[in-house]
Amino acid sequence: MAVPVESFFLTPGATGTLQQQIRQMVTEGILSGRLRPGDRMPSSRGLANHLGISRITVTLAYTDLVASDYLTSRGRSGYFVSSEAPTAPELEVPARGAGQGYDYDRITGRRWSRLARVARPEDWQRYPYPFIYGQADATLFDHQNWRACALRALGKRDFEALTSDYYDSDDPLLIEYILRNILPRRGIAARPGEVLLTLGAQNALWLAAQVLLGPGRRAVVENPGYTSLRGILEQADGTVVPVDVDDAGLPPEALPQAADVVFVTPSHHCPTNATMPLARRQALLAAARERDFVIVEDDYEFEMSFLRTVSPSLKSLDAEGRVIYIGSFSKSLFPGLRLGYLVGPESFIREARALRADVLRHPPGHVQRTAAYFLSLGHYDAMINRMKAAYRRRRTVMEEAIAEHGLTVAGQGGFGGSSFWMRAPDHVDTGELALRLRAKGVLIEPGQVFFAREGAPRNYYRLAYSSIPQGRIPDGIRLIAEGIAATGHKPVA
Amino acid sequence: MAVPVESFFLTPGATGTLQQQIRQMVTEGILSGRLRPGDRMPSSRGLANHLGISRITVTLAYTDLVASDYLTSRGRSGYFVSSEAPTAPELEVPARGAGQGYDYDRITGRRWSRLARVARPEDWQRYPYPFIYGQADATLFDHQNWRACALRALGKRDFEALTSDYYDSDDPLLIEYILRNILPRRGIAARPGEVLLTLGAQNALWLAAQVLLGPGRRAVVENPGYTSLRGILEQADGTVVPVDVDDAGLPPEALPQAADVVFVTPSHHCPTNATMPLARRQALLAAARERDFVIVEDDYEFEMSFLRTVSPSLKSLDAEGRVIYIGSFSKSLFPGLRLGYLVGPESFIREARALRADVLRHPPGHVQRTAAYFLSLGHYDAMINRMKAAYRRRRTVMEEAIAEHGLTVAGQGGFGGSSFWMRAPDHVDTGELALRLRAKGVLIEPGQVFFAREGAPRNYYRLAYSSIPQGRIPDGIRLIAEGIAATGHKPVA
Repeated sequence: MAVPVESFFLTPGATGTLQQQIRQMVTEGILSGRLRPGDRMPSSRGLANHLGISRITVTLAYTDLVASDYLTSRGRSGYFVSSEAPTAPELEVPARGAGQGYDYDRITGRRWSRLARVARPEDWQRYPYPFIYGQADATLFDHQNWRACALRALGKRDFEALTSDYYDSDDPLLIEYILRNILPRRGIAARPGEVLLTLGAQNALWLAAQVLLGPGRRAVVENPGYTSLRGILEQADGTVVPVDVDDAGLPPEALPQAADVVFVTPSHHCPTNATMPLARRQALLAAARERDFVIVEDDYEFEMSFLRTVSPSLKSLDAEGRVIYIGSFSKSLFPGLRLGYLVGPESFIREARALRADVLRHPPGHVQRTAAYFLSLGHYDAMINRMKAAYRRRRTVMEEAIAEHGLTVAGQGGFGGSSFWMRAPDHVDTGELALRLRAKGVLIEPGQVFFAREGAPRNYYRLAYSSIPQGRIPDGIRLIAEGIAATGHKPVA
Repeated sequence: MAVPVESFFLTPGATGTLQQQIRQMVTEGILSGRLRPGDRMPSSRGLANHLGISRITVTLAYTDLVASDYLTSRGRSGYFVSSEAPTAPELEVPARGAGQGYDYDRITGRRWSRLARVARPEDWQRYPYPFIYGQADATLFDHQNWRACALRALGKRDFEALTSDYYDSDDPLLIEYILRNILPRRGIAARPGEVLLTLGAQNALWLAAQVLLGPGRRAVVENPGYTSLRGILEQADGTVVPVDVDDAGLPPEALPQAADVVFVTPSHHCPTNATMPLARRQALLAAARERDFVIVEDDYEFEMSFLRTVSPSLKSLDAEGRVIYIGSFSKSLFPGLRLGYLVGPESFIREARALRADVLRHPPGHVQRTAAYFLSLGHYDAMINRMKAAYRRRRTVMEEAIAEHGLTVAGQGGFGGSSFWMRAPDHVDTGELALRLRAKGVLIEPGQVFFAREGAPRNYYRLAYSSIPQGRIPDGIRLIAEGIAATGHKPVA
């Protein structure tokens, strides 16, 4: 059969080069069984005319398809679907729907899906005023060098790093760089057996909770605190005790007498941005010794300390090995990378490593090796330098606009970071406010999800400046102030 | 200070271009504080002479370092460390070791690290006869097109797919391809809400076990069976019942009366390669209805059916939604990719999705998008076609060598696959045999870890042909036969 030229068409808005699009049309036709071995393809001239593209593009696509056995060339007779072409296996059984008869809710009790999460539209990039937290900014990310490093990590020399099943191991290049260059900045000296790579800080927190908690054990969390930690702890089968923070973070004197694991964000408290002073850190460590608990330190965002020199980590004060440290590249590189790490004594890391191997084995090798190159070539530090400068400028604009419109900052942090923790007047429900502002193109993050369920106030919200262009900040803040004013009261000055 | 040219040296065996190595030396010097703002760099001529490389290489490296703010150029005066150069923060607290004082074993009970795993040296590539299972073969992998697809996925158009925090979502391009092109080959029709991407099949099994099992629930596993599944089930807080398989896989009539979840590998039983016949599949589904259990189908390696057309999946016979289906790209692409998927009714997928979000959020975006391109451009099918042809040839050589040396095949599978399940004479401990063979450059996989602990025989082993070059097979098999003969008995013919 001669394949009719009319069966080919370019899809408007399709991505990829024209050559790739032709390749895709042909391979899909063959794999779906529509084109069969021996079928004659349209001539390259005919197909080019039909699609209104250059003949060389079609010829290159055909040549490529010959190389991968989809087509064969028979000299002047033209191109044919190869008898060796890949096929999708034919099945004797008709395809059926994934039936819905069985009631899974009966088994699962909807255990996992019932938790609250930060609400954010998926298409947040289309909003003009996205005061949202934790996504990469295309104008600050060093895309070109990331690409170059990724390409290098795809080379023949790195074939094993790309393709191997590492089981419970990690890329030694990345581990070495973290040990030699990242941890020393946080005052931490560690050996290879004391570090484990994770699928982001989320995964690190989850692993730590699973290893350290269990039935009858008590976890202390900050209130307000990191929302996702709540879901993680509900899985870890223990009791969760929220402790209210003040403007210096978690007060050690407020800890319950019986605690097994204390989760804390001393560098920048999430979400209030408070930094825990040295005296309080020492008191926390003293309490850990006296009452025999361990501490999980989530050191997210320490890289974004642009106002003052970052304070060293809590872990750097820990002589006994009671602190498990968590770092992440989500804020300093990008969250879609899914790369973080745990640091702790070998007896802890060994367990976390074995658990990680059961749950997911290891972060993909290519991701690890690309990060190792990007770090070791200095691109990472150069980029953070640029991000800090941009954040410093945006923060100044934020402060001015917030002051001008009389909004109230509840927590801003002394070191930098990427957000302000805000308080609206008591009567304002920021969940409703956020929905009304969204209609005007403004995205804010309602604060209720950061609090423990009982007695959660509804009038807090977070404004991040990591994804909003500097020039949009003043108008965005004005719209927020107008939105609050429209609730019937003046914003508290 | 003028930076002495002698402080630079090329490390023998370093990877990366000379330009990258210079960049790395300079950035590490600056970040470590050894080079300080205002320090004058050696002239490009001087450094080039010192290192014995071309001057243009040094100039290009310097220019690049100026662009990223590490150096500044002051015209004829030369290059200086920039006052804007990235710095590693200085800490007032001396770095301390990750203390070992606290006893984590007391908390963890070494719960996770005590499980048996398949033993395999990390440097298996250096052995001449690696009959090991499940690693990518550089001679078969389509590295060039993978690279091209990865590069495309690193482009500006795909910035969001690369960098975004997807939370509990997946790349819609990859999901669509799986729905339209992969699942129909297994006889499965599914909607987007019925598929979830996972960090490989390991992660898919883990998620399914967590969602479906719990205290008081009973899991049935094949004996022998997939080793890693045992670790996964020990975490899921239920009872595990091993059921002995025969040469047609799991016999439904041998199932215990009370079962909640049955884990099964019907296409190629792991490790015996048995394929479950249609009548037995129907009996298994009938039993699931009668006794009210669900089935988790691990459909690993279905792509490698080169002897006969692959049988459709068990899931394709499931009208009620009682089968949860697991697919993986580890064997057909490479295991370091860490990409697999779960298919099941929406009420199940919703829970698995929420759990995955808590544990790790999502597989890295770049990995998902690269796979989507590689699949949709037809490279995947072309490569599998080549792999199947190579495996078929290797398998023939294996069969001939095994017959010639009188080794005993315990399970080889009728559809293909990538390994033989072997039985040594009863007195042979294949764990000890593997150690002795390793000293001769031969890697085999002792079979004991595939069996339930009680009564595990020691005389089975697995020989895979997915990573050994065809020409090495005959000598490798001969060495195995000699190794068995040296245990004092002739191999059983």
